[in-house]
Amino acid sequence: MIEPYDHEYFMRKALQEAEAAFDRNEIPVGAVIVAQNRIIAKGHNLTETLTDVTAHAEMQAITAASSFIGGKYLKDCTLYVTLEPCQMCAGALYWSQIGTVVFAASDVQRGYLAMGTQLHPKTKVISGILEEPCATLMKEFFVRKRGLK
Amino acid sequence: MIEPYDHEYFMRKALQEAEAAFDRNEIPVGAVIVAQNRIIAKGHNLTETLTDVTAHAEMQAITAASSFIGGKYLKDCTLYVTLEPCQMCAGALYWSQIGTVVFAASDVQRGYLAMGTQLHPKTKVISGILEEPCATLMKEFFVRKRGLK
Repeated sequence: MIEPYDHEYFMRKALQEAEAAFDRNEIPVGAVIVAQNRIIAKGHNLTETLTDVTAHAEMQAITAASSFIGGKYLKDCTLYVTLEPCQMCAGALYWSQIGTVVFAASDVQRGYLAMGTQLHPKTKVISGILEEPCATLMKEFFVRKRGLK
Repeated sequence: MIEPYDHEYFMRKALQEAEAAFDRNEIPVGAVIVAQNRIIAKGHNLTETLTDVTAHAEMQAITAASSFIGGKYLKDCTLYVTLEPCQMCAGALYWSQIGTVVFAASDVQRGYLAMGTQLHPKTKVISGILEEPCATLMKEFFVRKRGLK
């Protein structure tokens, strides 16, 4: 049976957001938030464009999703993000009580798992969906960045 | 010798921000960011008003300070905040590489120390400045809140 709205489908949308960040010369991380198989928010990293360390993809998506829903809590929502969230984003996800977090590539240096940040106890986590293309985009970005220097 | 611009002076400004949050029926946390003895940013908790878990006082102050400076990094700045930062705010402070964090009251349940969040290794931390009035404002808020229920 074909399931059009699976984890890969939504992660591909997050990857499109990451590609938009790449095109702006931003570290290519993208995110979408889904409720009832519908994308209600999306965002990509804009820390350079906005000169603001808080402008991670997830933070923008959380703000947008809350605005769409009209409530602070995202219990019935799923975040798809191309890179494992950092401390800040995991801390925001904790407060949002989001239902599920799905991330693609791991961040063994600055990711929330290595840093020991706590998500809400009820939040489910799934990782590794489309890991390869999401990690490759990051690598391409840093290779290009170094080449420009 | 009288030193007008000491930690208490700036924490009192953060407390004024917390009082503004109290008056809006928001959990009363306030923050200011100081560079060269000058307040360059301030903020108070607006999570209810903006329906957004990311709208903590510190997050708004970081965004405003970066905008004022025209740079993402706050290495020569000091944050004054009336309550110990949470995971999210400590994570944002980590990325900002802020020089010094001064907080008033501890948050033994949700504060970054209990949660194990890491600040930047070069960030200095000072705590307990005006702890009593800042903690009392929080207690008053929750007593009033419970009374309303």
